[in-house]
Amino acid sequence: MVSQGASHLAPPWGAPGGLPATLEWVGGEEGGLRILDQTLLPGRVEMRVCQTAEEVWEAIRALRVRGAPAIGVAAAFGLCLGTRPFRDAEPDAFRAKVREVADYLCSARPTAVNLSWAIERIYAVTEQGFSDDTRKMWGAMLAEAQAIAREDAVVCRRIGEVGADLVPDGGAVLTHCNAGALATVTYGTALSMLYVAHEQGKRFQVFAGETRPLLQGARLTAFELAAAGIDVTVICDSTAASLMRAGRVQMVVVGADRIAANGDVANKIGTYSLAVVAKHHGIPFYVAAPLSTFDLTIADGDRIPIEQRPEEEIRNVCGRQVVAARAGCHNPAFDVTPAALINAIITERGRLKPVTAENIRDFF
Amino acid sequence: MVSQGASHLAPPWGAPGGLPATLEWVGGEEGGLRILDQTLLPGRVEMRVCQTAEEVWEAIRALRVRGAPAIGVAAAFGLCLGTRPFRDAEPDAFRAKVREVADYLCSARPTAVNLSWAIERIYAVTEQGFSDDTRKMWGAMLAEAQAIAREDAVVCRRIGEVGADLVPDGGAVLTHCNAGALATVTYGTALSMLYVAHEQGKRFQVFAGETRPLLQGARLTAFELAAAGIDVTVICDSTAASLMRAGRVQMVVVGADRIAANGDVANKIGTYSLAVVAKHHGIPFYVAAPLSTFDLTIADGDRIPIEQRPEEEIRNVCGRQVVAARAGCHNPAFDVTPAALINAIITERGRLKPVTAENIRDFF
Repeated sequence: MVSQGASHLAPPWGAPGGLPATLEWVGGEEGGLRILDQTLLPGRVEMRVCQTAEEVWEAIRALRVRGAPAIGVAAAFGLCLGTRPFRDAEPDAFRAKVREVADYLCSARPTAVNLSWAIERIYAVTEQGFSDDTRKMWGAMLAEAQAIAREDAVVCRRIGEVGADLVPDGGAVLTHCNAGALATVTYGTALSMLYVAHEQGKRFQVFAGETRPLLQGARLTAFELAAAGIDVTVICDSTAASLMRAGRVQMVVVGADRIAANGDVANKIGTYSLAVVAKHHGIPFYVAAPLSTFDLTIADGDRIPIEQRPEEEIRNVCGRQVVAARAGCHNPAFDVTPAALINAIITERGRLKPVTAENIRDFF
Repeated sequence: MVSQGASHLAPPWGAPGGLPATLEWVGGEEGGLRILDQTLLPGRVEMRVCQTAEEVWEAIRALRVRGAPAIGVAAAFGLCLGTRPFRDAEPDAFRAKVREVADYLCSARPTAVNLSWAIERIYAVTEQGFSDDTRKMWGAMLAEAQAIAREDAVVCRRIGEVGADLVPDGGAVLTHCNAGALATVTYGTALSMLYVAHEQGKRFQVFAGETRPLLQGARLTAFELAAAGIDVTVICDSTAASLMRAGRVQMVVVGADRIAANGDVANKIGTYSLAVVAKHHGIPFYVAAPLSTFDLTIADGDRIPIEQRPEEEIRNVCGRQVVAARAGCHNPAFDVTPAALINAIITERGRLKPVTAENIRDFF
């Protein structure tokens, strides 16, 4: 309902800072999904075009495209790509193929719920008429994927507008990982608030946690904020607490990969630590996320599946083995922050506060 | 007083796990200081021999030798090396030279007080007689440096014995940076407790925070614990909180670079964050340090000088530039943990608990 409403708005295309689009369908029905390969940033700005579901799956798994909203959009297009060769099949056989490719794409990364949310939206198209024309059905699927992408931009812009006045003029904001234009079609979630506040003329400093092990804060958040002319300083993740103790942080804002029915938030590993230290220092801690990040089928955060990434991401740093072979490494990609530590969740429909199961039920 | 007592004990030489000594004087009065170059670990085990104060200064600044106790010992030998060419000077001119080299060595790193503590012990030798024989004076300085090294091993072993029964049998211990054999002459401070507990037959798991930006936890702590046969797993620093929330950590123990008169502790950046999250989860947080780490001339931790390290340590990861040029980096080497978050300080003279200014005054 919200996303249908949003699709009537003019999409505010164009990434902040003049960056290329995070991901974009190019070339009509015979085209492909062009993504900005984020594993190469900030050193190289390179695009790659995916023509198959397998290429999209690999791009999601390898974090060439990442960020919950962006991988939702990528998977929607991936489902179109994976079923395109079967446009001449019987409708029922085609629908079975859609389901098969959908399940495959959902296996790329387990935590972000936006992926399965977008996939289900595309699948739903196949159940709305088109019973006798598979080509038309596929065309409607592609149109729906494009609608999801347009809506993501609108929704992210709206999140920024809803949250911008929380940004402290003359103060400093701490963020973690990348919940920016690079994590969405454009604008981002947490960073959208900063872009809108910056447009409004507010002056503030941003501390970006570098976000080990894959350094999305250092590589991506600093890159896009600096490109947009926002004052950004990268810190090691463990430095946040001492900055807070020194009174140098006025607000923390992060994105989310999945939000349970009670408001517990799964987000990049390290988020929970920031929420605890923010609470200790009395600093507000906000989560910014579209409604598509809520998973009301999951009662609380402890039931959210947490992706375990390869040990090698910790053991090898840019090609150098830094951990002795006989030692282990433990590499969860996400952690869960309990609702009680979150001051508000900023959505395209407004601010959810306090973050409780009851409030979330009323909100939806 | 304590260290004089300790020097009567037989030194338990030999690093755990059969590693080469962290640092050792080799070759008599014309010899040099041989150090294990820790910047190359864990990939390469290479020794280098310092023959001048400048080489020792560089080794300390570049973290080839690091850890508060170890750099104290290194500086003591460095003072001998830097004054050796002046052994034929008049005693007063020689003493002036000793002071000059002492000030120079103290400039290598500002936070660890063990450095100036060791330097002052060597300087004090020049004021105890020897007024007419500079060669004899220098020989006594070298003997004092060797005594400091021997005592460090004894003191560290004693810290382990004092603290070992805090280690939870069947549980898990979290540590940060490297407060092990590699940070001292041998045994370490925090890790000495683990080595002694391991000798006692306790079974436990260690989580080592990798310790960005220079990865001493990943490179050094995992290396020496694994070599000693202790079960060790490296985590990203920001993962600690979620392990605690999951009940997977029963104790935190770290070392210290300087302890103020009120018990506030300066230690590797990230220590304070761990203390806050440990408190939040009701997990005991211990500091293990020799008495030489206390600086009773400093009232509280906010007055401890905090070394700022180069931005490049964050901006470049093993040779790859990961932060866009237009973004800044903030790289303090240490943070301060207030005494109130520390359950006890484990010293060679016993456990200091609760950690208060009054208790510390009585302790000394």
